[in-house]
Amino acid sequence: MSELARSSDATQLLAPIDFYFDLGSPYAYLGSELIDTLGARYRRQVNWHVFLLGAAFKHTGAAPLTQQALKGSYALHDFARSAGFHDIPFRQPTRFPVSTVHAARAFCWLSAQDPLLARGFAHAIFRAYFTADRDIDNIDTVLDIAQSQGVARSSLAEALGSVALKDSLRLEVDRAIARGVFGAPFFILDGEAFWGVDRLPQLTRRLDGEAF
Amino acid sequence: MSELARSSDATQLLAPIDFYFDLGSPYAYLGSELIDTLGARYRRQVNWHVFLLGAAFKHTGAAPLTQQALKGSYALHDFARSAGFHDIPFRQPTRFPVSTVHAARAFCWLSAQDPLLARGFAHAIFRAYFTADRDIDNIDTVLDIAQSQGVARSSLAEALGSVALKDSLRLEVDRAIARGVFGAPFFILDGEAFWGVDRLPQLTRRLDGEAF
Repeated sequence: MSELARSSDATQLLAPIDFYFDLGSPYAYLGSELIDTLGARYRRQVNWHVFLLGAAFKHTGAAPLTQQALKGSYALHDFARSAGFHDIPFRQPTRFPVSTVHAARAFCWLSAQDPLLARGFAHAIFRAYFTADRDIDNIDTVLDIAQSQGVARSSLAEALGSVALKDSLRLEVDRAIARGVFGAPFFILDGEAFWGVDRLPQLTRRLDGEAF
Repeated sequence: MSELARSSDATQLLAPIDFYFDLGSPYAYLGSELIDTLGARYRRQVNWHVFLLGAAFKHTGAAPLTQQALKGSYALHDFARSAGFHDIPFRQPTRFPVSTVHAARAFCWLSAQDPLLARGFAHAIFRAYFTADRDIDNIDTVLDIAQSQGVARSSLAEALGSVALKDSLRLEVDRAIARGVFGAPFFILDGEAFWGVDRLPQLTRRLDGEAF
C-alpha cells in the first residue's frame, strides 16, 4: 500500500471535528479562519454547522457581550486584540450585533447542495462583516456576497423566501442546542465540547493524543 | 553598577501586574498558580486583590457558570480539563459555588499587614477548596487554614467580627468594580485588562513587548 493510500485510509477512520458558528460572532469569525488548517494538520474533516446565538441565549439567559455592563467595553477591546493575537484582519462593525438569519439560511441551503461552496460563502460573509463593515443582515447584501462566490442569485433569492428553508435552519439550530451548543465558536471532537477560540490550544492537545 | 543592582532597578521601574480573584473561582485558582511565575519571569511585581464575583454579577447580570442551562455541565468538564491542561491539581468541590466572604475578609486583613503572608493564605484557601474539598465558607475552616499559615488565630477571629473589616472588603470590591473587573481571574497590565486564565497567552505576549 502506498503512503498516500495509507494516509487517505487514516483520514477515513478519524471522526470529523464539528464546528458550530453564528455568522455575526467575532470569536466565531476567528475560529473560522483557524479551524480548517488545524483539521487538515491532523487529517480531520471539519463539518461546518451554522446556528443562531440568539436562540441559544434564550436557553442560557445570556445576552450579547457588548450589551452587558462592564463587559461591553472590554469585549470590544478583546475582539480586536484576539484578532491581532491570531494575526487575522479585523475591523469592528459599526452596527453590532446584527441578525444573521438570512445569511444563516443561505448557508443551510448551500450546505445541502455543496458544503465546500457553503464554506466559501461563510468565509465571505464573515470577512464582509468583520473586515469591510458590510450590512450582512441585509438580504441584498447576502445575495451579493453569495453571487460573488458563484451562487445563482435568483435560485438563492427564491429559496430564502421559502418556508422549507426557514424550517431547515430552525432544525439545525434545535439540533445544535440539543448537542449542548451554547456559544460560538463551539467545537466537538470525539464527543468532547470545546467552547471558544481560546480553547483551540486544548483542542490541539487532544488532537495530539496527549492525556491531560 | 553590578548586574544585580541594575536588574533590581529595572524591577522598580516596571509597573506591577494587578491580579483580581474570588477565592471560590476555579479559573481564579488556576490563575493564582500561574501568575507569580509569569510576573517573576518578566520582573513584574504581582499585586493580589481579592473581590467577590457575586458583587460583580449584580452589575453584569451574570450567574455562576454551573447554574446556567447548557453551560453548567460544560463548565464542570472545562474546570477539570483546564486544570489538567496547566498541570495543576484539581478536584471539583462537592459544594459549589460557596460564599467566600469570610476568606476574602481574612485576606484583606492579612494583606494590610503582610502581603506575602496574605498570598500564602490565599494559596492555602484555593488549594483547600479545589484539591481537598474543604468547606472554605465555614469561618472555623478559614481560621484553621490561616493558623496553618502562621497567622494568630484569635487576632484574626476578632478582626473577622469587626465592622471595620467588613467595610474594608466592601471598599476593595467597589474599587475592583470601579476599575471594570467583572470576572475572575482578571489581570490589569499597564492599564490593559485581561479576563480569564485563557488570556494569559495574550498577557504574556504583551509582556514580551510584541505589538499585536
